[in-house]
Amino acid sequence: MTSYNAPVKDMQFLLHEVLKISASDIPGYADLDEGFTAAVLDEAGKVASEVLAPLNAVGDREGCVLENGVVRTPKGFDAAFKAMKEGGWTALDCDPDYGGQGLPYLVNTAVGEIFVSANMAFNMYQGLTHGAYSAIHTHGTAEQKAKYLPKMVSCDWTGTMNLTEPHCGTDLGLMRTKAEPQADGSYLITGQKIFISAGEHDLAENIIHLVLAKAPGGGEGTRGVSLFIVPKVLVNEDGSLGARNAVSCGKLEEKMGIHGNATCVMNYDGARGWLLGELHKGMKAMFTMMNEARLGVGLQGYAVAEAAYQNALAYAKDRLQGRAVTGAENPNGPADPLIVHPDIRRNLMEQKSFVEGARALTFWGASLIDAAHRKGDAAADGLVGLLTPVIKGFQTDKGFEMAVQAQQIWGGHGYIEEQGMSQFARDARIAMIYEGANGVQALDLVGRKLAQDGGKHVMAFFEMVKAECKAHEAEPRMAEYTSPLKAASKQMQAAGMFFMQNGMKNPNAALAGSYDFMHLMGHVCLGLMWTRIARAALTALDEGRGDAAFLRTKLATARFYMTRQLPACMLHLARIESGAEPVMALEAEAF
Amino acid sequence: MTSYNAPVKDMQFLLHEVLKISASDIPGYADLDEGFTAAVLDEAGKVASEVLAPLNAVGDREGCVLENGVVRTPKGFDAAFKAMKEGGWTALDCDPDYGGQGLPYLVNTAVGEIFVSANMAFNMYQGLTHGAYSAIHTHGTAEQKAKYLPKMVSCDWTGTMNLTEPHCGTDLGLMRTKAEPQADGSYLITGQKIFISAGEHDLAENIIHLVLAKAPGGGEGTRGVSLFIVPKVLVNEDGSLGARNAVSCGKLEEKMGIHGNATCVMNYDGARGWLLGELHKGMKAMFTMMNEARLGVGLQGYAVAEAAYQNALAYAKDRLQGRAVTGAENPNGPADPLIVHPDIRRNLMEQKSFVEGARALTFWGASLIDAAHRKGDAAADGLVGLLTPVIKGFQTDKGFEMAVQAQQIWGGHGYIEEQGMSQFARDARIAMIYEGANGVQALDLVGRKLAQDGGKHVMAFFEMVKAECKAHEAEPRMAEYTSPLKAASKQMQAAGMFFMQNGMKNPNAALAGSYDFMHLMGHVCLGLMWTRIARAALTALDEGRGDAAFLRTKLATARFYMTRQLPACMLHLARIESGAEPVMALEAEAF
Repeated sequence: MTSYNAPVKDMQFLLHEVLKISASDIPGYADLDEGFTAAVLDEAGKVASEVLAPLNAVGDREGCVLENGVVRTPKGFDAAFKAMKEGGWTALDCDPDYGGQGLPYLVNTAVGEIFVSANMAFNMYQGLTHGAYSAIHTHGTAEQKAKYLPKMVSCDWTGTMNLTEPHCGTDLGLMRTKAEPQADGSYLITGQKIFISAGEHDLAENIIHLVLAKAPGGGEGTRGVSLFIVPKVLVNEDGSLGARNAVSCGKLEEKMGIHGNATCVMNYDGARGWLLGELHKGMKAMFTMMNEARLGVGLQGYAVAEAAYQNALAYAKDRLQGRAVTGAENPNGPADPLIVHPDIRRNLMEQKSFVEGARALTFWGASLIDAAHRKGDAAADGLVGLLTPVIKGFQTDKGFEMAVQAQQIWGGHGYIEEQGMSQFARDARIAMIYEGANGVQALDLVGRKLAQDGGKHVMAFFEMVKAECKAHEAEPRMAEYTSPLKAASKQMQAAGMFFMQNGMKNPNAALAGSYDFMHLMGHVCLGLMWTRIARAALTALDEGRGDAAFLRTKLATARFYMTRQLPACMLHLARIESGAEPVMALEAEAF
Repeated sequence: MTSYNAPVKDMQFLLHEVLKISASDIPGYADLDEGFTAAVLDEAGKVASEVLAPLNAVGDREGCVLENGVVRTPKGFDAAFKAMKEGGWTALDCDPDYGGQGLPYLVNTAVGEIFVSANMAFNMYQGLTHGAYSAIHTHGTAEQKAKYLPKMVSCDWTGTMNLTEPHCGTDLGLMRTKAEPQADGSYLITGQKIFISAGEHDLAENIIHLVLAKAPGGGEGTRGVSLFIVPKVLVNEDGSLGARNAVSCGKLEEKMGIHGNATCVMNYDGARGWLLGELHKGMKAMFTMMNEARLGVGLQGYAVAEAAYQNALAYAKDRLQGRAVTGAENPNGPADPLIVHPDIRRNLMEQKSFVEGARALTFWGASLIDAAHRKGDAAADGLVGLLTPVIKGFQTDKGFEMAVQAQQIWGGHGYIEEQGMSQFARDARIAMIYEGANGVQALDLVGRKLAQDGGKHVMAFFEMVKAECKAHEAEPRMAEYTSPLKAASKQMQAAGMFFMQNGMKNPNAALAGSYDFMHLMGHVCLGLMWTRIARAALTALDEGRGDAAFLRTKLATARFYMTRQLPACMLHLARIESGAEPVMALEAEAF
């Protein structure tokens, strides 16, 4: 059996020593002092360890069951969901006008990590609701907001996003679901949507579906797509529940993981819906939520890896097998613990340095979203747009890889379902796929984000890295972090240059290297994070603040990342610079 | 639903154009002409596509069931097993003295790939039997061989290997299973073994367990371990079956994958066993089968990836999504097939170049085993010993990675169990763990094999690579393959040098880089294979032999591997040369 403890100490260090949030001028950040965030994170950690983590294996084993159109969630999910609602955890960063607590998105992100680590599948019911909340909050009329948001903030009603159809996922222009306008201003929605997470379940009295569909007159492709609010149960003028709408769950998918979450085929048979946002601008409305949703999936990548790491570490310290090559370290026992072996240590350090670096990147990304939303910082908005495909794509690839490495430490026991390590790998796998498969993230990054606004966001990123390195020039102890970062950043610039010089003549020359570029940039981002962490640790050590032993682990982990992981940038650059020819040489027919 | 077609054309090219087997002086190879191997492979392919592949999903879904001590295999397995026996597929390379067909191990390897691709879990029943057959064949008395082998060659009786116990897997010195000598020369075996593949099932009338146990007087650790033959049903003098032995299956494990194979907890409660080989030399007896067993697992790595690749490719050609960035390629359809997108092409080329390269390496390894066994070639024996941890560790890591990439091409559908792509990833995962976890392979490679016999096998490997490059100096068309190979080989030499110079002072300096070295060497091996393949393809093209379009795909795939995959060597070298410090800096307590 696996267990989970929230890494509150690490989060506190990140929030207050690295990001220094309470000194930030982002509205609302001044209130986030150490005592406040510690209280929130400790309490979230308690819920996670005591309520959510014990249900993780239950959800995996039992899964959801569809009977007569009703979906039963696993045993214990209902009570846990009530506990989440009662604790106010669903409302943290929501608008106080609708019952939210108005806290920054960053706080929600830190708490979200804790809940996802403890039980990813369970947390999706709330996570999807939050996404739908944001969409209505941003694009809804005053009436729509008043009608739906208070119940969604409290999670008395949950939400969904309906994009995918059997024949189209990435290419939504092929969509067939139709919306027919009615005389009263509503629409009748007809079509089938698949892969709808939390599409039907027994945790809430209503489910507010957001559905992309084609209304007449919008033209071909994605231009004709609009977004609709389609409640499972119609809501009366007075807010009470009315008749059941013509929407139903046709099937539950059996999946590789996240069994605790109901992945539904949803049938819309002339279901009544109301336009959300502008007619024929449904894609645009969806995309405004994209950064947040993708950041949330990038978070899942490392949050599941964190849980897997904790259990790999515990096993490595506990399991006795073999002797240290440098002499017995547990001479009175029958063997030494696994952790004495260098290759086990390598594996653990790869996990640790990834998870902590990704946490820093994600928290930073969340703070940029706060800066964009709370003080209208356009540069922050542009930067987080650039970082989003990296956070989503790189972190979920690596998160899965690290969950697999954690499983490996358990040897044969890692392959046995009862032990729980397989679940982490199976759950983490979906994050590479949904919310835009990682190949699509790479395409978004190289095909769109790099050149956006004349390339100014990537230029700003390079300037930021340069400034970070320059700021520590006078500090010789920082050279071991800044020198590799500088080299990696130059490799990233060279890759960008290659795209500029070759992508014009042949766009495939850029796209063939897009996946490598996403990973290259991911490493540069984590290198930047580890440089900032190292600087913060050195400062705290110099000033005699905090736990010195803990701070020194940050320096050692930063050093590991710089020497063992950052060199991956040169490999990605070499691949990128080989261009399109090796990739595209074979005709499709020749495969 | 997935499907599978044996890559007979590719195998034939490898056997006859690259390895040129029928011109080899290895006894038995002269008979392996093109017509013969084509007939064998075609027939195996038919069994695989028609009988085994359709049962792959069935086995995954149904799994095995334990009731009242009896294990039921999935529906259809029994009939398929009968078909395998009747077709003579279990006896291909077995000794004719015991009913085998006496074919080279290489033929068994090629056929084995086909069966594993079609149904890995099913094929393990036969694979384990072959391992036990080899152990008895090598170490058994004339009487033991006569008693057990004929029935094992025909798979009327199957076999198992019993090493692992709940508290020890890698470190078998901790073993607790006891063997008490009896007056009649037999032993009573008492203890519990876990993770016993095919430990109990309904496919055969008897199961011959090979069990490691400690007999009195052998001393501490692995020195006290002996190997015993413990039949499930005792065998009378006349070969008929007698009483049931005191061995039983206590539990079936629920696993991440290979559900069709019964993974058993086996309880030995004073079961009667007979010593196999020398007393207290059980580990040695096990190790003599190691190369073959580990080569077999390395084969599983790429064989499952081959099946996954075939289905990823079919989906990429079929699924319409988006448009080629260089202009519509399917202008009359609603969208272009996935395969037009450069990142999909990159993904497919990575799979293709790995699988074909690994097949070449595995076939070559099998031919070295034949050279060692059939003509006593000591150099071949030493070389295959060096290659074995690479074939096992590198190929199973990459095989899993590629199965995951194949799944990725299916997008959300890849995560749905019904579609079958998840099973490839889940099945492939075990190959990284069993038969020595891959970290142990890396330890075997760097801690043992590199320095074995004064390092002469690795020196011979370097010489072989050098000779390969030199042989093509006069051929300018080969430079694009030999130049990167030369560079990669130099990086491997530099890594070996680093180990020599630093490993003496601090063994951790070598072991911290062992995993990277295993991958570095894996890439050099595949680079060598692709060089040989390219040379063979050019020769055949020049001489007007074979299918020119097919031969040109080999050149394009070789080029892809050289430009996009081989550069990984420089990354592995950089990691290795960073030494032990970054890996070992944190004390165990500081994690």
